Amino acid sequence: MTEKIKKILLEIGKEARKASQQLAMADSKIKDNALALMGRSIIEDKKIIIQENQIDIEKAKENNISNAFLDRLTLNEERIESIAIGLKEISNLNDPVGEQIGRWKRPNGLDIARVRTPLGVIGVIYESRPNVTADAGALCLKAGNAVILRGGSESYNSSKAIHRCLVKGLEAAGLSGTSIQIVPTTDREAVGYLLSGLDGSLDVIVPRGGKSLVARVQKEARIPVFGHLEGICHLYVDKDADVEKAEKIVVNAKMRRPGICGAAETLLIDEAKANTMLPILANALEESGCELRGCNRTRNIINSLIPAEEKDWTTEYLDSVISIRIVDGIRGAIDHINSYSTNHTDSIITENKSTAEVFLKEIDSAIVMHNTSTQFADGGEFGMGAEIGIATGRFHARGPVGVEQLTSFKYVVRGTGQTRP
Amino acid sequence: MTEKIKKILLEIGKEARKASQQLAMADSKIKDNALALMGRSIIEDKKIIIQENQIDIEKAKENNISNAFLDRLTLNEERIESIAIGLKEISNLNDPVGEQIGRWKRPNGLDIARVRTPLGVIGVIYESRPNVTADAGALCLKAGNAVILRGGSESYNSSKAIHRCLVKGLEAAGLSGTSIQIVPTTDREAVGYLLSGLDGSLDVIVPRGGKSLVARVQKEARIPVFGHLEGICHLYVDKDADVEKAEKIVVNAKMRRPGICGAAETLLIDEAKANTMLPILANALEESGCELRGCNRTRNIINSLIPAEEKDWTTEYLDSVISIRIVDGIRGAIDHINSYSTNHTDSIITENKSTAEVFLKEIDSAIVMHNTSTQFADGGEFGMGAEIGIATGRFHARGPVGVEQLTSFKYVVRGTGQTRP
Repeated sequence: MTEKIKKILLEIGKEARKASQQLAMADSKIKDNALALMGRSIIEDKKIIIQENQIDIEKAKENNISNAFLDRLTLNEERIESIAIGLKEISNLNDPVGEQIGRWKRPNGLDIARVRTPLGVIGVIYESRPNVTADAGALCLKAGNAVILRGGSESYNSSKAIHRCLVKGLEAAGLSGTSIQIVPTTDREAVGYLLSGLDGSLDVIVPRGGKSLVARVQKEARIPVFGHLEGICHLYVDKDADVEKAEKIVVNAKMRRPGICGAAETLLIDEAKANTMLPILANALEESGCELRGCNRTRNIINSLIPAEEKDWTTEYLDSVISIRIVDGIRGAIDHINSYSTNHTDSIITENKSTAEVFLKEIDSAIVMHNTSTQFADGGEFGMGAEIGIATGRFHARGPVGVEQLTSFKYVVRGTGQTRP
Repeated sequence: MTEKIKKILLEIGKEARKASQQLAMADSKIKDNALALMGRSIIEDKKIIIQENQIDIEKAKENNISNAFLDRLTLNEERIESIAIGLKEISNLNDPVGEQIGRWKRPNGLDIARVRTPLGVIGVIYESRPNVTADAGALCLKAGNAVILRGGSESYNSSKAIHRCLVKGLEAAGLSGTSIQIVPTTDREAVGYLLSGLDGSLDVIVPRGGKSLVARVQKEARIPVFGHLEGICHLYVDKDADVEKAEKIVVNAKMRRPGICGAAETLLIDEAKANTMLPILANALEESGCELRGCNRTRNIINSLIPAEEKDWTTEYLDSVISIRIVDGIRGAIDHINSYSTNHTDSIITENKSTAEVFLKEIDSAIVMHNTSTQFADGGEFGMGAEIGIATGRFHARGPVGVEQLTSFKYVVRGTGQTRP
């Protein structure tokens, strides 16, 4: 079995590498046409996709899965249509491949340009959200990359049905169907082979899912990973904050969608104004349905709060819970954040511009913010059109990973016969 | 012993991480002042450096090393002065840290900027060229990074003497002496610990040296590597080439300095004009002292040539030897290069612009050139001021690795109270 899976995956890797060479040269129009035809095919095969999704749902129910999980797994007509709309939106993005991102002339007349090229072959490992099959496949294609998809086993039949539509679209547009491949087994061993890089056939892994998935990927991957383990996002409300603004931002950053990686997990409040600000912010959060856990100084002001323990500063609740700590001004805030940060997104609320600039400079996270909500940490909200995820590494892709981040570059040097002295 | 080395290295890593936090915030003026004082200290301690270098040279002679090796190892007054000048030149470069590399506004008023930040802690592993101690230390410092240096054991005393001058300069400028550290042992085990990433204290490894060093680093490193294994650079002389131009470029690309990574190793000639062009190019190369090895079709035209074997297409000679192959036009050239390429630098010689553009688009190397010499593959020649090496990876740093490539970035988002709908 093991040898068989390995053989299948290595073959998929080879096909992907071959397809990536064709894709790297493919015209924007052909790629966009493929995306449009993929969308059309998904609409046409709506019924089949729903049938296959039903098989997944029945199996999942036998395994007593949670309602939230079931909701993410379920496809209906509306959701399938929105998958097709997503493909259309991706086709409307600018094609980054071939874009000139720098050009200069040397004193000897050499003309040097920096030009975007595709990355090559991307592996995407995701949990049981069938829509990711289309989103991830399309984003990789747009940037001229081949992709190997490995979705959660609970959505296997749904993902395969969507994948068949993607292949139809590719082939109808004259591109190789192997540009987007799906791992044809739910065996967990297959993930291990992907993480090994398939003998050089895979250039990067993008994990999309919960902490245990990402932790496994980061630990085992022998190739680069674009991803983030956790988003422990902080809000710091400075003594010079506009309290009304702070109230709105704090509630939005925590409660708009508590389960996303850009949701705030810890609220830091400047000691200098904590007496007046804490009760207002705490009240607003409680009214929105949030559980509060406070440090000792917080509980000196509101003694009914649940005590926050050390582990609260290191927990990504992904739920309607927030930890609150009173800190000694901007220095205390920066110390706390740089100690407990997962380098995702952190925001300061203040009307004092110079305090804000200190925060923006000294916080070492992929995204640092002033007077706005951490929930804006998103490729779409950044104007990138769509994202395959958020990365917290320091190399290449950092922050939202959109089409542009799925490219590499090369230098193009144009001369007129120059030789080096 | 092993445990002791490990402990020392982990301690160095911790100190480097601490220093990197100070450096990330350091003002350009302070960093530039440190570079100036480092240079002054090297000039002042010239005699000591030469004494220590003598110790290395004596030891090396006992081990019967080659003349080329001895030459790279040797320091004299002139070479030490040029090290100091190199430091001055690095201080004159623009500081990339804090530079805004993109800025846009969203419809909701959010102002998003992309700003360069240092990478963190860089490990540089190099062979016995004592000048690299100063160059690499200075480039990393300029970009706000702490660095851990590990030079070849044969230059250990020279490197330590230079390193002491760097530390004096750092401390005189008010920066931590641990910003630039040197591994205080010649034990090879130390390299293994560096490649492991020192428990997260090291962000990237830069190998500078021959193939065996780079191969070990690429195989064992558990963290990103900026480097290249080999530079098998190709020249393709198209049927539409200006033969005089081609002659000059071919001789320069191979023979200016045959031992550098940007030197050409294979000359491809378009079959359509091979009868006239090959004798001219071969003659020019032979007159410059180059040994020629040709494919069968080449030998049909000049039958005195040494036959090229399969392994000639995969060999980085780093010497006055070139392999020559006749190919079927641009398609044949691209096929050959993409089969044997090490993705370093390749150049086409032609007066036909559209043929050139096909080459520049389809060759998948870090640097692609038209009508110029592959020996220009160099950070200084690109106008980057200085480079720590050439990278052939597809992520982050590709091509010459200058100060800019030693940085990361973050997004800075400025709002006025926006919350996400």
